[in-house]
Amino acid sequence: MSKNAVRGLRSMTVARPHIVPNKYFTANVAKDVWSLTNEAAAAAAGNAQNKGRELINLGQGFFSYSPPKFAITEAKKAVDIPLVNQYSPTRGRVSLLESLIKLYSPLYNAELKAENVTVTTGANEGILSCLMGILNPGDEVIVFEPFFDQYIPNIELLGGKVVYVPINPPKDMDQRVVKGTEWTVDYEQFANAITDKTKAVIINTPHNPIGKVFTREELTRIGEICVKKNVVIISDEVYEHLYFTDSFTRIATLSPEIGQLTLSVGSAGKSFAATGWRVGWVVSLNPELLSYVSKAHTRICFASPSPLQEAVANSINDALEINYFENMRQEYKHKYDIFTSVFKELGLPYTEPEGTYFILVDFSKVKIPEGYSYPEEIANKAKDFRIAYWLINELGVVAIPPTEFYIKEHEKAAENLLRFAVCKDDQYLEKAVDRLRLLKNYL
Amino acid sequence: MSKNAVRGLRSMTVARPHIVPNKYFTANVAKDVWSLTNEAAAAAAGNAQNKGRELINLGQGFFSYSPPKFAITEAKKAVDIPLVNQYSPTRGRVSLLESLIKLYSPLYNAELKAENVTVTTGANEGILSCLMGILNPGDEVIVFEPFFDQYIPNIELLGGKVVYVPINPPKDMDQRVVKGTEWTVDYEQFANAITDKTKAVIINTPHNPIGKVFTREELTRIGEICVKKNVVIISDEVYEHLYFTDSFTRIATLSPEIGQLTLSVGSAGKSFAATGWRVGWVVSLNPELLSYVSKAHTRICFASPSPLQEAVANSINDALEINYFENMRQEYKHKYDIFTSVFKELGLPYTEPEGTYFILVDFSKVKIPEGYSYPEEIANKAKDFRIAYWLINELGVVAIPPTEFYIKEHEKAAENLLRFAVCKDDQYLEKAVDRLRLLKNYL
Repeated sequence: MSKNAVRGLRSMTVARPHIVPNKYFTANVAKDVWSLTNEAAAAAAGNAQNKGRELINLGQGFFSYSPPKFAITEAKKAVDIPLVNQYSPTRGRVSLLESLIKLYSPLYNAELKAENVTVTTGANEGILSCLMGILNPGDEVIVFEPFFDQYIPNIELLGGKVVYVPINPPKDMDQRVVKGTEWTVDYEQFANAITDKTKAVIINTPHNPIGKVFTREELTRIGEICVKKNVVIISDEVYEHLYFTDSFTRIATLSPEIGQLTLSVGSAGKSFAATGWRVGWVVSLNPELLSYVSKAHTRICFASPSPLQEAVANSINDALEINYFENMRQEYKHKYDIFTSVFKELGLPYTEPEGTYFILVDFSKVKIPEGYSYPEEIANKAKDFRIAYWLINELGVVAIPPTEFYIKEHEKAAENLLRFAVCKDDQYLEKAVDRLRLLKNYL
Repeated sequence: MSKNAVRGLRSMTVARPHIVPNKYFTANVAKDVWSLTNEAAAAAAGNAQNKGRELINLGQGFFSYSPPKFAITEAKKAVDIPLVNQYSPTRGRVSLLESLIKLYSPLYNAELKAENVTVTTGANEGILSCLMGILNPGDEVIVFEPFFDQYIPNIELLGGKVVYVPINPPKDMDQRVVKGTEWTVDYEQFANAITDKTKAVIINTPHNPIGKVFTREELTRIGEICVKKNVVIISDEVYEHLYFTDSFTRIATLSPEIGQLTLSVGSAGKSFAATGWRVGWVVSLNPELLSYVSKAHTRICFASPSPLQEAVANSINDALEINYFENMRQEYKHKYDIFTSVFKELGLPYTEPEGTYFILVDFSKVKIPEGYSYPEEIANKAKDFRIAYWLINELGVVAIPPTEFYIKEHEKAAENLLRFAVCKDDQYLEKAVDRLRLLKNYL
């Protein structure tokens, strides 16, 4: 390399070329809630109020603890097998497909085969694969509000159009503890939202951020409308093992016709407290429909991480033997008992958590001092962003403002709510409770 | 569930709904070379000729051996750290970004920063992220022929259009051992292929399947045309450590202007013989251009596997200390010495391998018995598919027909060639040599 070239590279003084990137990314430049919250938390950690105390982060839903020991052991065993470090088949390792068949056959009351399961690089890429497998540009996808924020770019980047249908909260949720079943879908509105361009609907149960587990009746109503109108159901069931109701209903099992339309997405990250493993899957009673998901996955990631697939395959077998999923549910009931105690004490209403590891708390009664000052990018957002900012700065507790999971026109519905994640160890939750008790000074 | 519903699910007697999937997948139903080859190999393993002897598989480029011990050790250490099992930042773990900066800064003769590097879920998703970051529907991407087959759906699924420019082989490659530099790009043809819709060109060096390492002069010609026409260069450098020429030139380093247009893709899978780890990255001297790659990656996979990222971060540090990459090159020179010996002995021409772990061998001189019978899906393909089929069935050796890496109109160029992968342990290669020696009966 010539000396001049080196200098040029080093100093990067050269003019930037003008490249027009994917217009989707230039049209959607608003900072997402995760960046805004993390930046606010980083800044708040150094302020006067937070001096000498730990910042309690109940924002993003990552586990503060390790995956179970058996899963770690399986991961170590997996990397020790030479060929387990090489490419897996694009549909998934045989061992993982077999474990998933063993796990799901009784839950589907069916004898599943390899053609009913396909492995993806986390549930995130699983949902993208479902969408890429079936969408053509201009197709519409119905998404219930509030929604997991990632669904929207996943649909729009493929040239799809999102149609929003609200899940309506009870009108008096600022007055009392409400149940997940009180957040309701208007089925007529849902049916009317379906046009001849509607290709799919995404449902999410247990639901993030509401914590609602859709009932058999609710899912039957949704499923029957989809059968009538021939709409594919993408069922995001990543919290399938984290339900605290008597049972968890899988929409695919409600009728053979509904089953043929459904793609159900699962996640090893959520099931084994290992969000960084990036192993997920899609289950369907309709192998032909599922084959398009596999084809899309082949082109997106080709194959998913092999040693972690092998670890998950064996961890599922271990989990079934020791009743791990039921034990996890009991542990989470305990976590919620710890965490909700402070809201009961203060009389702050929330939505009873039926599933997931989130809880929506209503902050209408909390009086934030008038004239409190916010950075411009927070001041311009909905009220819950200001509540969250205040909570980080005054109490040192991080929560997520849920209007991020609504489009602008509908965000009023959630402007007094905050979402807390309880996937933290018990001691940490107890510290959170102590800190949140300070809210009594603002009621 | 009602008894009827259970029966319905079990027997799946219900009529399949009519769902129109992504038309790309219904328009491209031809079986890919990997499926065809694997199926032919599975069938041939049981035939009379192969009875009592092992099938030698030099087809797909997966390593027959383990990643180096230090990498396995790092992987086990990584899963033992609780939080290393949780989400990584979408741009990559800090530890991996730091290792990549340390690895690449001297190679780029620049002080790289975190903004110059982004981690992806393997190089495959890295290239998709590059394309999704910059393409708008209708944009054109130039791809040199022969090409890595995955590029094509990656471009077309995003609504892009592929424009093919050949790398022309020497006319007498059926007569003698030729050099990679004798496969040449017609620069005028390349420049003329660029229209006002051309957004990018994909180059691949060291090149799969040719085994060619593009020279400084060749890359300068290509880079200067891209600067003149403002075309982004996606440089697939996944075999960057596997070159057997005196040096490996990175196009991004050839001038500041070229650097600003270049996205260079690397792979931990290729660098550490761990194709199943799914950790890759994109390096660019243009942080703004790279930011669109990161944004796309966020929407495709959100984040990449954490423990394997951590393992790669530490393995890069280990590798630099023990001169691992140089040692690997020496090992591969030895592998090629073993493998090419049989072709020298038989007088079968090939392209001198300058890089990658592939070799293209010319089978023009091999006389396949007339009237040899092929299954229909092989008979309808180019001649190299028939040679490959014959080789699997008669000699029990699996190789890849390279016309798969050409469009139909241009496949004549490669119809007498087969691609062999040498990323196998030395003993296996020696067995391959013994077996291929049987070709002398067909010359």
